[in-house]
Amino acid sequence: MGSASDMPVVEGSINTLRQFGVEVEVLVCSAHRTPDIASEFSRNAQSKGIDVIIAAAGKAAHLPGVIAAYTTLPVIGLPVKSSFMDGLDSLLSIVQMPPGVPVATVAVNGSENAAVLAVQMMALKYSALDDKLKEYKETMKQKVIESNNSIQ
Amino acid sequence: MGSASDMPVVEGSINTLRQFGVEVEVLVCSAHRTPDIASEFSRNAQSKGIDVIIAAAGKAAHLPGVIAAYTTLPVIGLPVKSSFMDGLDSLLSIVQMPPGVPVATVAVNGSENAAVLAVQMMALKYSALDDKLKEYKETMKQKVIESNNSIQ
Amino acid sequence: MGSASDMPVVEGSINTLRQFGVEVEVLVCSAHRTPDIASEFSRNAQSKGIDVIIAAAGKAAHLPGVIAAYTTLPVIGLPVKSSFMDGLDSLLSIVQMPPGVPVATVAVNGSENAAVLAVQMMALKYSALDDKLKEYKETMKQKVIESNNSIQ
Amino acid sequence: MGSASDMPVVEGSINTLRQFGVEVEVLVCSAHRTPDIASEFSRNAQSKGIDVIIAAAGKAAHLPGVIAAYTTLPVIGLPVKSSFMDGLDSLLSIVQMPPGVPVATVAVNGSENAAVLAVQMMALKYSALDDKLKEYKETMKQKVIESNNSIQ
Amino acid sequence: MGSASDMPVVEGSINTLRQFGVEVEVLVCSAHRTPDIASEFSRNAQSKGIDVIIAAAGKAAHLPGVIAAYTTLPVIGLPVKSSFMDGLDSLLSIVQMPPGVPVATVAVNGSENAAVLAVQMMALKYSALDDKLKEYKETMKQKVIESNNSIQ
Amino acid sequence: MGSASDMPVVEGSINTLRQFGVEVEVLVCSAHRTPDIASEFSRNAQSKGIDVIIAAAGKAAHLPGVIAAYTTLPVIGLPVKSSFMDGLDSLLSIVQMPPGVPVATVAVNGSENAAVLAVQMMALKYSALDDKLKEYKETMKQKVIESNNSIQ
Amino acid sequence: MGSASDMPVVEGSINTLRQFGVEVEVLVCSAHRTPDIASEFSRNAQSKGIDVIIAAAGKAAHLPGVIAAYTTLPVIGLPVKSSFMDGLDSLLSIVQMPPGVPVATVAVNGSENAAVLAVQMMALKYSALDDKLKEYKETMKQKVIESNNSIQ
Amino acid sequence: MGSASDMPVVEGSINTLRQFGVEVEVLVCSAHRTPDIASEFSRNAQSKGIDVIIAAAGKAAHLPGVIAAYTTLPVIGLPVKSSFMDGLDSLLSIVQMPPGVPVATVAVNGSENAAVLAVQMMALKYSALDDKLKEYKETMKQKVIESNNSIQ
Repeated sequence: MGSASDMPVVEGSINTLRQFGVEVEVLVCSAHRTPDIASEFSRNAQSKGIDVIIAAAGKAAHLPGVIAAYTTLPVIGLPVKSSFMDGLDSLLSIVQMPPGVPVATVAVNGSENAAVLAVQMMALKYSALDDKLKEYKETMKQKVIESNNSIQ
Repeated sequence: MGSASDMPVVEGSINTLRQFGVEVEVLVCSAHRTPDIASEFSRNAQSKGIDVIIAAAGKAAHLPGVIAAYTTLPVIGLPVKSSFMDGLDSLLSIVQMPPGVPVATVAVNGSENAAVLAVQMMALKYSALDDKLKEYKETMKQKVIESNNSIQ
Repeated sequence: MGSASDMPVVEGSINTLRQFGVEVEVLVCSAHRTPDIASEFSRNAQSKGIDVIIAAAGKAAHLPGVIAAYTTLPVIGLPVKSSFMDGLDSLLSIVQMPPGVPVATVAVNGSENAAVLAVQMMALKYSALDDKLKEYKETMKQKVIESNNSIQ
Repeated sequence: MGSASDMPVVEGSINTLRQFGVEVEVLVCSAHRTPDIASEFSRNAQSKGIDVIIAAAGKAAHLPGVIAAYTTLPVIGLPVKSSFMDGLDSLLSIVQMPPGVPVATVAVNGSENAAVLAVQMMALKYSALDDKLKEYKETMKQKVIESNNSIQ
Repeated sequence: MGSASDMPVVEGSINTLRQFGVEVEVLVCSAHRTPDIASEFSRNAQSKGIDVIIAAAGKAAHLPGVIAAYTTLPVIGLPVKSSFMDGLDSLLSIVQMPPGVPVATVAVNGSENAAVLAVQMMALKYSALDDKLKEYKETMKQKVIESNNSIQ
Repeated sequence: MGSASDMPVVEGSINTLRQFGVEVEVLVCSAHRTPDIASEFSRNAQSKGIDVIIAAAGKAAHLPGVIAAYTTLPVIGLPVKSSFMDGLDSLLSIVQMPPGVPVATVAVNGSENAAVLAVQMMALKYSALDDKLKEYKETMKQKVIESNNSIQ
Repeated sequence: MGSASDMPVVEGSINTLRQFGVEVEVLVCSAHRTPDIASEFSRNAQSKGIDVIIAAAGKAAHLPGVIAAYTTLPVIGLPVKSSFMDGLDSLLSIVQMPPGVPVATVAVNGSENAAVLAVQMMALKYSALDDKLKEYKETMKQKVIESNNSIQ
Repeated sequence: MGSASDMPVVEGSINTLRQFGVEVEVLVCSAHRTPDIASEFSRNAQSKGIDVIIAAAGKAAHLPGVIAAYTTLPVIGLPVKSSFMDGLDSLLSIVQMPPGVPVATVAVNGSENAAVLAVQMMALKYSALDDKLKEYKETMKQKVIESNNSIQ
């Protein structure tokens, strides 16, 4: 994440990933204040055994794009709601990447989805995760059914 | 893709995927006009050996979300530029998914990036693709260097 | 409605419909988490004697469009205010439907209007409802006149 | 329609309605230039046997709301693309109606959908129209299937 | 004003007009709920001796345009902040009037300015008002100078 | 107007004013490039016998506000369509004036309306203009009726 | 600043400038209420020894542009968050300046950045400031590193 | 600039700078495709004798922010009009920088202003440039006066 102030949003991703039993490395590093740490981290991510990177940032949210510049791993961009137009700046700064350097963007403050998307990607490699995704999908379905029952 | 009229955009994805040697199945199916074909396709995608789905749509672009509802495979959403605010409707309809059902969204008309993102995901499973991604990244870099040289 | 959290908005529709003496079936079903329930409901709505469907949803609000895909009944889309740009995402995801599959869209959080519109449609078939609509219109008028009087 | 210049858009509605065998009365009348004609028309619509009104307008598109003020018939609002932000002004002026006076809004320039929605409403009363809607839906589906076949 | 709920905003206009010694008639009348009262009021305004009309409304704010349709008096539109995008809907519904029927639009919730603008218009006819406007302008200037002094 | 490039838009105002027999002084002066000419003009406008000022400008359209700062005459702001979001920048720069210094804003490129609004204001003083406004309104009405006739 | 109410935002700039040991002159002057004070200040700024001007304003934020009209000094525009779309009006009114009269715009409410940018400009002339900027940059970096450490 | 395709816009800056007799180094380097070249360039800019950097980019325009991360020189951000909402994405990605790392943003496609702003900054150090800025300002003024004369 680009700033420690993004932690309340990013926590949603961390918790979801841990629910899936995925090992998580958490890092605060800014594309603008610690650009060397960001590029260093990204360059070495693959060799350290990282499979997917979730990069969260707000306002002129450059972190996901900067991370994506230094790696061929899939990078998920999590736009953090800013105080300007509910994060339209964050969203456009992350999703509108130029050809060749994609960032897989989720909804503004969509921390749970960033995690689920990461798990879906990793499930291509680790099939055990796919079983957990199917359980997760079934649980969601049951929750909707229950909430419908309680409304009736 | 949701409509055959999206083909000029989607072609960018198909061509890029083929450059990477990735096998592609192309399907026109609409979330609104052929919902059964869309859900059927999505439900069976994994068992047919599909790894990643790219869903392209415009306007009230529901196809990526509908596809994501029926599968645990990663779904990439490609917002097609509509005649309304340059596809702001397509972008928001695709990226703002509720918790639990992510769509990995790329830029409006970002067809090449949809393909590169798909390759990055598959490279987690097929390591040969990662070598191709590194080549691709190097080629992009050389093109920028050359375009800089020709401007000097 | 797409989620039980939409209930505070949807209640406005339910209450208004009941005021008109219209029988209401309330259902929580998600286009993304329980797509089979949504499609099943929509497919069978007409044969169950339902005349009009009001579908409420927020964010990437696909439920009204998905419902409209499976029925020829008129579908009213009620955009629920999201935490992003006051529901611009919900509004555009609902109103910008492609040709052939309309959703009759009302204002963001316009729950009373969704109900009144449903009654107007049903009044084509049940003329008693038209009398109630005329009373309702007259009551509204009187309220404005009274509020003007109390301000003077 | 509010102006004869809206005719190229409104034609889409007229043609679709005629395809369904629905009788159409076409009227150019402006909420601002001929307000008396607009209110007169609306006030008398029901007694003349009209079932549904489609009101098309652009910019500060008041016609649908003004029509809805004088009748209890369902009014469909068709936002015409203006030269400002692709008709965002038309869309918001039509869809954001206050409680009690709904306008069933379709997509910007969504002329075909305005007609289909009108037919869906009338089908509540004239069951023969419902058969035609089912045929229409089937035809749409076949067209998508064909366009998919021709792309393969 | 279109609704009694607009009173907190409209009060700013009333107070300012009274400060200038201008006689004010206050009326709650809705373009959609009491269209006949609105058109009646507008049609008779000039013969009753009214010089300028300020029309305040929110959301799909049709009142100013509807008033302007029935009179040749200058009509000032005061967009009331709605719960959607801070009144962008109100602003566009008021300012984007078609050729021939202008509405003099002020800022969203710009109630004081609606009044000052009305006074500026009437000052063309009643020159005593122009002296008051010059005093008002001088007072504003002194307040800025004082606020600057207190900050130093 | 702020720039000679605004002339094609401003011409619409000039022609309409001349149709009404109103004397027009045309001036190109920029709030940013010739601020002294702008302030000088505004300061002296009233004593030169000017009744109303129409100020047209695009982009960061400061001219109307700057003109309004130096005079108590009513100032009409005409937002000129810029190459950015169809003149949203021009519109907001003109309409969102702070309390005390109103600018009577018309639609983006609403040149005819700027003129009609000016005539409506002047008609408070010169009653002959009111007769012409009534004729103008009648002509508009007849044109709509004729365009309706030709469509039937 | 255009109004004393902007002080809470502008304070961020003042404090940052003082941290850098830069002498600050604070002035409340409005482009619309005290235009003569604004133009006078700007015209004389350079001869008084001022190097850079930071102009803060909200809504139809004309102050930065008006200041820039009267001087060749660099003018930094600080858009103050308004009650309309989080200051989109302020931002566009400041950044969209016509050719020839630039305003160096920072983020909405970006008071610290307005100051840092001013220091960066002055550092071209006073090299001691550049050392302070390097320290400031290092301090920022250390803060990110520390916040990362405390999260681990 | 981030891509050779930005050259038609950037040319406006280069030509203006040369008119002022300022030495220009032109570089195509991408924040995403050649991040090392971008960071290298920025890191060394000051020691190579560069005073001000103009960074032009479109879409998710990260280049200006990335450049600003590695230097204490003032960085001017020039948003290039993209195919999405006339460059709203470019503008927000550039202007909404987090505290501590400012980018001096000019209008979308405001290439001439980027250059004039750079000259204004450099004029703090090289007083000869200030004379040229005064001439430039005078020439602009004369051009407006002439264009006014030719219109009369």
